[in-house]
Amino acid sequence: MFTFGIFLTLMVLNYSLASREVKKVIVYGGKGALGTESVRYFRAKHWWVVSVDVRVNKEANANVKVKMTESFTDQAKQVTVGVSKLLGVEKVDAIFCVAGGQAEGNAKAKSLYKYADLMWKQNVWTSTICTHLATRYLRVGGLLTLTGAKVALGPTAESVSFGMAKASVHQLTRSLGGPNSGLPPRSVALAILPVTLDTPTNRKIMPNADVSSWTPLNHVTQLFFKWTVGKSRPPSGSLVELVTTNGKTVATPIKSV
Amino acid sequence: MFTFGIFLTLMVLNYSLASREVKKVIVYGGKGALGTESVRYFRAKHWWVVSVDVRVNKEANANVKVKMTESFTDQAKQVTVGVSKLLGVEKVDAIFCVAGGQAEGNAKAKSLYKYADLMWKQNVWTSTICTHLATRYLRVGGLLTLTGAKVALGPTAESVSFGMAKASVHQLTRSLGGPNSGLPPRSVALAILPVTLDTPTNRKIMPNADVSSWTPLNHVTQLFFKWTVGKSRPPSGSLVELVTTNGKTVATPIKSV
Repeated sequence: MFTFGIFLTLMVLNYSLASREVKKVIVYGGKGALGTESVRYFRAKHWWVVSVDVRVNKEANANVKVKMTESFTDQAKQVTVGVSKLLGVEKVDAIFCVAGGQAEGNAKAKSLYKYADLMWKQNVWTSTICTHLATRYLRVGGLLTLTGAKVALGPTAESVSFGMAKASVHQLTRSLGGPNSGLPPRSVALAILPVTLDTPTNRKIMPNADVSSWTPLNHVTQLFFKWTVGKSRPPSGSLVELVTTNGKTVATPIKSV
Repeated sequence: MFTFGIFLTLMVLNYSLASREVKKVIVYGGKGALGTESVRYFRAKHWWVVSVDVRVNKEANANVKVKMTESFTDQAKQVTVGVSKLLGVEKVDAIFCVAGGQAEGNAKAKSLYKYADLMWKQNVWTSTICTHLATRYLRVGGLLTLTGAKVALGPTAESVSFGMAKASVHQLTRSLGGPNSGLPPRSVALAILPVTLDTPTNRKIMPNADVSSWTPLNHVTQLFFKWTVGKSRPPSGSLVELVTTNGKTVATPIKSV
């Protein structure tokens, strides 16, 4: 009986410590190309992964399904309540906002209104929700990544609404770098600024492109991992260019603009 | 009879020339503080002024009333159809987007979602619609002004959603500066970047502020007039800082960032 008691106590202690030690991340856009890769990568390391997406990712430990709506505040509240029910008082080590979308067309294009709407929903809504979630559920010293675009550092006449949305994400990131950002102490907010990600969709729409300058998805997830465990973190608020040459990716935090 | 014939011909010619010469402008946000001032200023010069706003401005020659909706595409289409019915094949000399709004709060603020939504509606929706209208209704060599904010050139942690919206407007402006912007030939798109405008609302919420650094509204309308008639126009795509010191306002196009 005595032995059994010790055994039980040890089991409980062990379970409790283990549960505390399990790393937890949220992948926002967890069913997209980079999202799917991120979920898979962190699951392979036995981290506890929540996918937030309009579609369920069965590889994740848990899902928060985003409802499409015309109202940002409705969607933001729905997702925030969903995450809050899932996490309770728990905190996560990282939130990766890998949701996003791209669109072409200048200001005269008939598609302008449609794409502007889509770009805000896919890029700005998601980044704003992730950021607020980070202020509530990121642990002290945690990591938030948003997804910008290198091209939006300059004028984007021929993908005007895409550039507007990404400029907004860049501004959000820069604003999170300083004091009073609302993020937990010692946490870091970064935006990755890829050129072209090597996704199935990009391969399909650009079948003849030179893919040696495209960034493989696992280069990004390796970077996410490194930053999450505290290695080579750029200063919070940095926009980090991802430039791939001959299959090698270099991550360069750009100087404040 | 002959004399009367000549007289009539001259009258018709004169009328036709005059009607061609009437300058036309659209003031988007024509019932706000800067909008009201703009409508009044150009009406005093006997220009033909359209006000686009959620409220009617009786001083304008014509109004397009904006319906509030959760759907950007619905609102954008409603306004575009309204303007198209009013103008037909006519073009305007300038479109001034003086709609806008401001909000405070960092990413952790409970008000984040509400204000982010409002900031996009008031600043980004309006600027996007104005820009598309400019591609369709601005004359060759015409002027489009958007409204940015000097503060959004740097991080805006404590007015995070405002900064995001204004950064988007800045990006839009920069994108309109180059070729393939979709604007008519030789037209110019500029963003004004005020610090604080001297409006009744600002006087009310900051009763003890030093207003000598606030920009009087008629300094802005004088600038609009000058630019519309082609005087001292900065290059298209410029962000133009408006800095007022001791009641004197200097407009400085900032270098591309």
